[in-house]
Amino acid sequence: MFSVQLFDDAPDETAYVLGLGFRLTNEKAIRSVQNWKRVSNGSVVTVHDAFTNRSFQDSSLIFVTDYHPLSKTLAEQHLCGPNRFQGRHTGSHIPEQVLWTYVTQIASGLKAIHSCGLAARVIDPSKILLTGKNRIRLNACAIMDVVQHESQRTITDLQHQDLVNFGQTIITLGANSPSVMNNPTKAMDHFSRAYSPQLKNSIFWLLGGLQKDQERNIDIFITGISSQLISTFDSALHLDDQLISDLSRELENARLVRLLTKLNFVNERPEYEHDRQWSENGERYFLKLFRDYVFHQVDTQNGPVVDLGHVLSCMNKLDAGTDEKITLISRDEQSCFVVSYKELKKAVESSFQALLKPVRGL
Amino acid sequence: MFSVQLFDDAPDETAYVLGLGFRLTNEKAIRSVQNWKRVSNGSVVTVHDAFTNRSFQDSSLIFVTDYHPLSKTLAEQHLCGPNRFQGRHTGSHIPEQVLWTYVTQIASGLKAIHSCGLAARVIDPSKILLTGKNRIRLNACAIMDVVQHESQRTITDLQHQDLVNFGQTIITLGANSPSVMNNPTKAMDHFSRAYSPQLKNSIFWLLGGLQKDQERNIDIFITGISSQLISTFDSALHLDDQLISDLSRELENARLVRLLTKLNFVNERPEYEHDRQWSENGERYFLKLFRDYVFHQVDTQNGPVVDLGHVLSCMNKLDAGTDEKITLISRDEQSCFVVSYKELKKAVESSFQALLKPVRGL
Repeated sequence: MFSVQLFDDAPDETAYVLGLGFRLTNEKAIRSVQNWKRVSNGSVVTVHDAFTNRSFQDSSLIFVTDYHPLSKTLAEQHLCGPNRFQGRHTGSHIPEQVLWTYVTQIASGLKAIHSCGLAARVIDPSKILLTGKNRIRLNACAIMDVVQHESQRTITDLQHQDLVNFGQTIITLGANSPSVMNNPTKAMDHFSRAYSPQLKNSIFWLLGGLQKDQERNIDIFITGISSQLISTFDSALHLDDQLISDLSRELENARLVRLLTKLNFVNERPEYEHDRQWSENGERYFLKLFRDYVFHQVDTQNGPVVDLGHVLSCMNKLDAGTDEKITLISRDEQSCFVVSYKELKKAVESSFQALLKPVRGL
Repeated sequence: MFSVQLFDDAPDETAYVLGLGFRLTNEKAIRSVQNWKRVSNGSVVTVHDAFTNRSFQDSSLIFVTDYHPLSKTLAEQHLCGPNRFQGRHTGSHIPEQVLWTYVTQIASGLKAIHSCGLAARVIDPSKILLTGKNRIRLNACAIMDVVQHESQRTITDLQHQDLVNFGQTIITLGANSPSVMNNPTKAMDHFSRAYSPQLKNSIFWLLGGLQKDQERNIDIFITGISSQLISTFDSALHLDDQLISDLSRELENARLVRLLTKLNFVNERPEYEHDRQWSENGERYFLKLFRDYVFHQVDTQNGPVVDLGHVLSCMNKLDAGTDEKITLISRDEQSCFVVSYKELKKAVESSFQALLKPVRGL
């Protein structure tokens, strides 16, 4: 099955995974995707739908998932991209703390998947997306359920296999060269040397090496990594704090854009250029002088004052409608007016509303 | 000790907790605050410093912490604010999921504090800040270490007390009426009826009710609540996603503000009003017409077109400098020009640079 990703322009950032030349033999297979809609987890790429299609002169299978722009797979990021099959050990060591964040996120994703009675079935560095700094998501999850629907294995069995694949993925990343995977002993060796006993034991447990014949599920694993989990949780909270701080600074800009646009709508309208009633109306005349005050200041040598700080400060006071008074000078320098930002704000509002009136009258 | 919170205008949002009339008897006490600087956790209000001062005609003790504007204490939020000592049961039931988010965050904070060899010593609904939706932080942490420095209790003992206070805080919130705290049996009764056995057992463990004489520390507690922890972790990731999405929309606004400001700096400068060289220079003339194109459109009835979408679309194309061509009409409707956004972008840049020249020449 040849697969290609298509992206549409829909604002909700959806991706379509297209499998050409796939013949669907069992209707039930496609319906299994409906179960995947219940999985809504920050560490799993959300699956929306799947359907067959004949538009490509072929019988095709299309999956619809969330689209995460500018993401890479873990393989591209850590296993040296296009050169990764040349067998040379060119990747750089992944710090233990980063590996732990991957472990906790995959564990979170698997918990959500397993609690819905499903199994990921594909856990591989080439199918895990890195969508942000140390932020990963399991991808391609629903596909095997459709393509290999006739699987004889039970869900419990598939879920156990998930744990093993999980462990193998971490070993591959930690060993940092896929050639080592061909030699499990060498891989575990390298891993044990490079990382702490706690990480090594957690991964060993996933591979089924410890506590054979005892109950093995993702909940037990999570209990075992709880201290790392709380550490990754705290990092997510710190990121929330940072984003909220950045966002509040930026929200100010939206307000300014709207205010600047309103001012530009009102000032210098050609249809009122010779309209005495419009231009000599006190309010609109002040707005013209105010525009000069904000944008057309000159210094003592008559050079233009180009100061964004001054512009922002004036616009913020205008938006707030403060009582502070400023002096506006007419262009011929013959007249001089003292107005407050409060009066100017009122002027902007009523002039702008006046523009809207003819439109509403239609 | 009377305490008041003062806030300065520093951009880093620092708060000062001022304790008047406090006489510091032991220099070592103040130095204990240095240990608190090592605690950097998303669920603990960061402590920066503490010092004594005589500016208020008194010997005062001042603590410097992060400032979280618009936050409430959990007591104000859930235990009915100012009426909470009137003994009436007026608070609304706190859903179990919310209580669990509080539990996981306090656990995260305590883990950070205990790992630094410290103890919170104050865990109470009136000293826990709600700084966002379901987002809490332990407050007033370093204070007892200074004020009750002579405490005879060992750190391990104080840390055990932290766990007990933790449990009592959750019971108080769950029981939702401080009067019930006077009757521990009644409180546990209410709690057991209102919440799941898992939550009840976790809190009971904190209070020391289960497994007496066995080792008790925050790490063991965290292992016990790991499934709830992973759920709260996933919520934090969802919030990260939401914030990043909001932020990327808003970042566009800063760019637009700068571009609109540049346009306004260049257009209609009074000192060039009669300067043929300035205004009939092709570039600046086009910018004047472009300003009309963007802000001064009229419809078929000659009514003003007030369309923010049009403005944003034009400004974005201008910023990108696309090859799309537009028709600009002179005010007297006698001349008509076809220019591309690419040429207009170049015009904005060079006109703006021309404004900066005289300034640089100084």
